[in-house]
Formats: sequence, structure tokens, C-alpha cells
Amino acid sequence: MSNANADSLVASHDPNHPANLICELCRLFYNNGWVTGTGGGISIRKGDHIFIAPSGVQKERMLPDNMFVMDLETKEYLRVPKSLKPSACTPLFLAAYTNRNAGACIHTHSQNAVLISLLYDKVFTIANIEQIKALPKLTEPGYLGFFDTLTIPIIENTAHEEDLKDSLEQAINDYPATTAVLVRRHGIYVWGETVWKAKVYNEAIDYLLELAVKLRQLGVPPDGAIGSERNTRVV
Amino acid sequence: MSNANADSLVASHDPNHPANLICELCRLFYNNGWVTGTGGGISIRKGDHIFIAPSGVQKERMLPDNMFVMDLETKEYLRVPKSLKPSACTPLFLAAYTNRNAGACIHTHSQNAVLISLLYDKVFTIANIEQIKALPKLTEPGYLGFFDTLTIPIIENTAHEEDLKDSLEQAINDYPATTAVLVRRHGIYVWGETVWKAKVYNEAIDYLLELAVKLRQLGVPPDGAIGSERNTRVV
Amino acid sequence: MSNANADSLVASHDPNHPANLICELCRLFYNNGWVTGTGGGISIRKGDHIFIAPSGVQKERMLPDNMFVMDLETKEYLRVPKSLKPSACTPLFLAAYTNRNAGACIHTHSQNAVLISLLYDKVFTIANIEQIKALPKLTEPGYLGFFDTLTIPIIENTAHEEDLKDSLEQAINDYPATTAVLVRRHGIYVWGETVWKAKVYNEAIDYLLELAVKLRQLGVPPDGAIGSERNTRVV
Amino acid sequence: MSNANADSLVASHDPNHPANLICELCRLFYNNGWVTGTGGGISIRKGDHIFIAPSGVQKERMLPDNMFVMDLETKEYLRVPKSLKPSACTPLFLAAYTNRNAGACIHTHSQNAVLISLLYDKVFTIANIEQIKALPKLTEPGYLGFFDTLTIPIIENTAHEEDLKDSLEQAINDYPATTAVLVRRHGIYVWGETVWKAKVYNEAIDYLLELAVKLRQLGVPPDGAIGSERNTRVV
Repeated sequence: MSNANADSLVASHDPNHPANLICELCRLFYNNGWVTGTGGGISIRKGDHIFIAPSGVQKERMLPDNMFVMDLETKEYLRVPKSLKPSACTPLFLAAYTNRNAGACIHTHSQNAVLISLLYDKVFTIANIEQIKALPKLTEPGYLGFFDTLTIPIIENTAHEEDLKDSLEQAINDYPATTAVLVRRHGIYVWGETVWKAKVYNEAIDYLLELAVKLRQLGVPPDGAIGSERNTRVV
Repeated sequence: MSNANADSLVASHDPNHPANLICELCRLFYNNGWVTGTGGGISIRKGDHIFIAPSGVQKERMLPDNMFVMDLETKEYLRVPKSLKPSACTPLFLAAYTNRNAGACIHTHSQNAVLISLLYDKVFTIANIEQIKALPKLTEPGYLGFFDTLTIPIIENTAHEEDLKDSLEQAINDYPATTAVLVRRHGIYVWGETVWKAKVYNEAIDYLLELAVKLRQLGVPPDGAIGSERNTRVV
Repeated sequence: MSNANADSLVASHDPNHPANLICELCRLFYNNGWVTGTGGGISIRKGDHIFIAPSGVQKERMLPDNMFVMDLETKEYLRVPKSLKPSACTPLFLAAYTNRNAGACIHTHSQNAVLISLLYDKVFTIANIEQIKALPKLTEPGYLGFFDTLTIPIIENTAHEEDLKDSLEQAINDYPATTAVLVRRHGIYVWGETVWKAKVYNEAIDYLLELAVKLRQLGVPPDGAIGSERNTRVV
Repeated sequence: MSNANADSLVASHDPNHPANLICELCRLFYNNGWVTGTGGGISIRKGDHIFIAPSGVQKERMLPDNMFVMDLETKEYLRVPKSLKPSACTPLFLAAYTNRNAGACIHTHSQNAVLISLLYDKVFTIANIEQIKALPKLTEPGYLGFFDTLTIPIIENTAHEEDLKDSLEQAINDYPATTAVLVRRHGIYVWGETVWKAKVYNEAIDYLLELAVKLRQLGVPPDGAIGSERNTRVV
């Protein structure tokens, strides 16, 4: 593909074009403290084209012209922006696309995710909080109910981000009902059927992680506090 | 009513039109972390027309065109936006309109509300904090005084939001002086005579919930701290 | 003065005109959580004219047209905006104008101020923190040094805000070096020679109050932590 | 140099011109709470010209016209804005320019920096957190790895900011791998090869300082929490 054609892949006046959306969402994530210091990453799929933010750049200052584009089938880059490096998250994004048919994948360094990974061992679970209902069941249609338990696996970090691929895929296989994987001392990967679903899942999960951290600070067990005998039921 | 007429119910250049205000206020609430992950809801009444934000959408990205409109008398929808679901909060908003003649009702997933519901049992009370004076007495004209106690009932959550209706109405009846009800492990419902009063009450209450959480973190009893012998009086 | 003339007192294209500045600063204070739920207040003096924000309104939504204007000499209102009530803070603002020749006075319901008032008894003191250097000595020219102690008196709250006047004036007299007074379970009053100095003092004080709250949460004594034998000196 | 020529040093339509960038970045830092109450400072080098924000002004309200310009070789001011004082940080910025060939130097009063300086003694260290990878090795090419330890020296504060120069230079010499120095009870100095690197380093360090404070609040040792036997390795 000629360079001019490659550039056309990321040039659009449509604010919902992946190259534009990635920039807009990263500004939002930056303001939430999730991708400061060049941390984190994001990828959106459009048909067989995968748009990926570059590595090591200020996520809140990216332009559509900075985006990599990869063909999902061939795994070849259709567009490589000048002077930029591909994201080390790319194999992990591909794991979500391939194993879960995701439409987008978000990776943040959210402090809530890092803290939870230091407070919980192999999985993070939370139950009986209304916000859980924003998350999908996945193994069957529909969303989690209030009395359901949300379970997110925690994998160990590796020296190189791309080396997370095997354990991430293992977690995806071991936990077919999860739409996210926590990486200890690192952050979180969240994906969804569309970019908006991935964004909503990431928001809802971060809300729950933050709440669980605060409950720990207050000495309140997430599943056994006041009103629990009347208000919680594990089904 | 023809579809064209129904659309005219939500089309206005007036920023204070309910369909416009709902969008503006939800962006504000989103920035406060009260309605992230599609959580929360809001409804404004204009005469006999009730404007209601739809279910399961990103609250900060709504457009006036997304609003449901219901007739308060007949409980029939005057307008149903395409492809959107009515809010599960609708019966709860109606409870505030019917039992309290409210002009607006706000529902958030504020973490302060959820935390307080896990720290207090059947009611949240706070006294002798200046911010209390932003809240109305309701059972008589005027506002609470500094030495008054603010009391907000806490009801248990249910699997389906609409099933909160009975206990919410019960709380409204049992606590005629309250302008809000906390829902354990869920959030808060706040209403007011006008949308601006509902907004101010919600802000003032969230300030007090946040303060009570911080006092708990610091080990300071809300009603018995330094200066209390000189500064607190229960009347 | 005719009504037309009175309106001209608050109509200006100059962003630094007191009626405009009050609106701008209150939006900033609102975003800091200092004046939510209609809380707080502000007044700016221009010559003998005192501009005062009204009582009980949303501070972030005020317009220049909402401002009261009072003559400092005669204490008579030169302008009374329609349907609005004068701020109950007015006698307290006057105390700062009269006793300290202030150019502006800011009142907030900052949670840091309320928390500190429940952690300290009659005065809040903090020493050996660089931010202290933003505050004036007042009893002599210049600013506090790093090794100086900042002392802010705490007065008891009253049922009616205007009744704080006597104890506020007493504190102003008893603490000639202070540019602020904390009100227990209520908030803080901060004044300065100009509106910008008042704004800077308020910001620097709130920073120090917040820091002192965090130190308490961490169990670190403000004046006796790591490095203190090398780094603190009371002069 | 004539005054007209001096003014031309800070007048540019290029948003990346140092005089413009200083203003933009300080607004960002202000919103992060790092330079409130006139605290903090920043300097950017362009060739042999050093641009420095003035002392004692509101950092979020500066204009390009407020900037000092100094010649790095001669240490003479090429431009002195009217009625403004040079920053007391100037000798410290020069220490970074001279000893490290920095392209920019940022100084903040970040509360995370002050808190960490009261929780750690002579150095702050943190290891095995992904965000560390945003920081350079300096003593060899490339960036820190996940299993590396970030070490930032802490120096004692002095009565006058310019008197920090000797201990700052000592720390720079003693810790050739550091790109920042913490000042106890004061804040932090961070520099980098370019202004963007300095900004990214400052963000990444503040993220790590904030995380370390939160771990302390939660009672979690930064280097010995859940998963540590599997996930941490000191190399």
C-alpha cells in the first residue's frame, strides 16, 4: 500500500473514526490519571483493521496521524507512522481480538488496579454492589446481577510487556466470563465488543476497584458489612 | 401524538429546557464520578411532562434527542427515543413526583453514598456541620439550622432497580423530613421542588457523606470531636 | 442612586472588574469543592465600593448582575439585585475590611478546613513546610520563612452566620499576624490586601490544611517526622 | 540588547516556543495541585537561552511576557520583565543545566513529594512497579526495567531556596542515575533532556510517589506484598 493510501487510513472528519476516538479517549484517560507519564495504551478494531496508539508517547497529546494500523488477518502493518515505535501491548491487544472477537482493548496504569493487585492474590472478586450490573456475563447473554460476583484474574508482571501474552491468554481461557485481566504491580487490560463497551467496562471496573480500596482503608470487609445479612446473597 | 410532535418535546434552544439540562447536568455528575459506567439517572418534570434519561447509556454523552417523555397523569410515554430502553429508575422517580410533588429527581452511584451505606445501619445522621443549612426542613418552612440533625434513611438494595419502589415509598412516608434516600451498596436518590434545588441538595448531601467518610478514616466521631462541648447542641 | 446607575456598577467588559472576577473565582472555587451546594461566599472591595455575592445561590452559576454593592463608609447598599438576599457573611467581610483594610475576603466550606477544626483545638499551627512562605508576616513587612510557624485561630460556630462577627473580630485582634480564621465545623475566612493576595493566601492555606490532614492519616506528626532533627528549627 | 529585541525573545505564535510552553504547562501543573499558591517553578532551555518563570506569581495566570531570559554562558539576563522578581529557583535550574546538560527543569510543591519526604529518610526507593519504566537509566542508555529500583535522593530544606544549590549539586553528583531530587518538607526538582522528557519524568515520578503514599496508608510494604515472591526480583 502506498504511503498516501496508508495516511488515508487515519484521516477522517468523523469523530467516531478509530484514529480520532483513540486521541479523544486518551485525553479522557489522562485526566483520570490512568495513562500519565506515557503509560497505558489503546487499540480499536474496524473490520479487519486494527488501530493502535504508539509506544512511549504522551497519550494525551497524540494526533490521528500517530496511529499504527495493522491487518488482523495477516498481522502486517498497513501503516507505520514516521519515527514512532509500535506499542509493546500489540500482542496483548491481538490476544483479545483473536480469543474474544473484541472490538477494542484498553490498557491503563490505574493506581486502583495496581493497589488491588497488591491486596488480592490470584483473583479480585466483588459482589453485591450495584455498579457490577454494568458488566456482561459473557458465558451467557446479558449482564451481571446485583447478587452476582464479579471475578477478575490477576496475572504476574513480566520484564517485557509483550511477554505477558501467554499468561494473558491463559487467563482469558481460564476465566471465560471475564472482560478484563489485572496485571500485578502494573495495571489492567479491559476489552469489549465495541470501543464504547470497552470504555464502559473499564469505567465500571475502575469504580469497583476504587471502592474496594476504600473499603480496605475503612476496615470494612467488601462482602460482610452493615446490612449484609439483609442485603447480600451469593447465588 | 405524531412522531414529529413527540420530537418537538425535546428540541429547544433554551439551555434550561429539561432535555438540554439533563444532558448538561449529567456531564457535571460524570466529572464528579457519580454516573460513570452508565450508572445513575435523572428526571426533570415540566408541568405534567416528565423527562427521563434512558437506561444503560453513557450519561456524559447523551443528547436531548435521547430523552423519554412521560405524561405524569396517565403514566403513558409521549415520546420513546429509537433503540433506547426506559430507565429502570422510572418507578422511583414517579414515587418522588407523586408522593412529594418533586420537580426533579437525581440518582447517583456516588461512592460516598455506597461507603456510608456500609458504615451506617438504618439511617445516616449528621449534625452541627454548617453545610447542613443547605437542606430543607420540609415538615415546616425553611432550612435546617446548624444545630439540627440531618437524617437520611437507608433502604436495602434489590435485584431489580424497579423493585426498590415499595421500600423507597415506605422511606418517603416514614421520613417526611427527608429529601433523599440512600440505597445500600448502590447509591442515592435525591429530589427537590425544582431541578436546581434537587441539584443543590444532592451536592450538599454528597459533601456531608464525603465528610463523614473522612471523619471515620481519621477516627473522629462526627458528633463528639474537639470543641464539641462548646460547639454542638442537639435541639 | 437610580436603578440604571446602580446596574452600571456591575456592568463592565474588564475581566478584572470585581463583579466579573467574583463570578470567575467562584467557578474556580466550585471546581475545588469549596463552595458546592451554595456554600461559601466572596467579596471584593474597589475603593469604597464593596461587591458581595448573594446568599443561597449556586456559586458557580452567578452572573455579574447578581452582585450586591455596598458603600464601605455608610454601610448602605448602592445596589440590591432583584429577588436576591444579601449574604449572611456581609458583617464578617466588613470586619476584614474595617479591621484589616482588606481588599477582598473569601469564605469557603473547604472540607480540609472543617476536618482541621475537628483535629485541632483553639489554633491550627504548622511549621517547616515550604508552602508557608506564600503567607505574609503582617506584623512586620515580608513573608513567613520556612522555619516560621503559621498560626490560624479557630473560633466556634454559631447558629446564625452573622453572629460570628464578634468572635471573628476578637480573633482578628488576638492574632494580628493572621490573614485567616477557621470556623469549627463550618469552614474558613481568608482575606488579603488585594483579591489576588486573598486568593493566593486561601490556596496556600488550604494546601497546608490538606497536608496536615494527610499527615494525621499517615500517623506522621507535622513537626516531628523523619529528618526533623536536621530540618526543623523553631525560631 | 534593546528592550524591543528582548521582548522579541518571548513573542511567538509557535505553541512550542518556551515562553508559551511554560504558561501552558504551568496551567496543567496548577490543575494537578503542584503549583498552587504561587508555589513551584519551571525553566526551559533553547540553545543558550534559558527561559524562567518569575518568582511569587500565580503560576496558572502567567503570560509569555512575564518570562525572564538568561544567557546560559554568561549567566546574564537578556530579558527582565517589568515589576517581576527572578525566581529563587534560578541557581537550582542552572545546576541541572550545567551538571546534566538538561533541556528543562520543573519544580513543584506536590504534596506527594512532601509526604514521601516525611516517610523516607535519605532516599526514596521503589521497585517492581511498571510505571518505573518511564524513567531513564542515565548512567547507561535506555530506560529502567520493571525489576530495577528507582532511587531518588532527599535533601534537607534551607531557609532560602537559592541555598539549596550546594546540596542539590551534591545529590546530582552522588546519584548520577537520578533525574530528580526531593527536598524535604518542600517538594521536588525534576529535569530532562527536553521539556517533554522533563514533563514525562515528573508525571511518572509523581505517580510513583502517590502510589507509595497509598501503600503506606494501606499498610502494604512497597516491596513485599501479595504476589511478591513470584513477581519481584532485585537485579
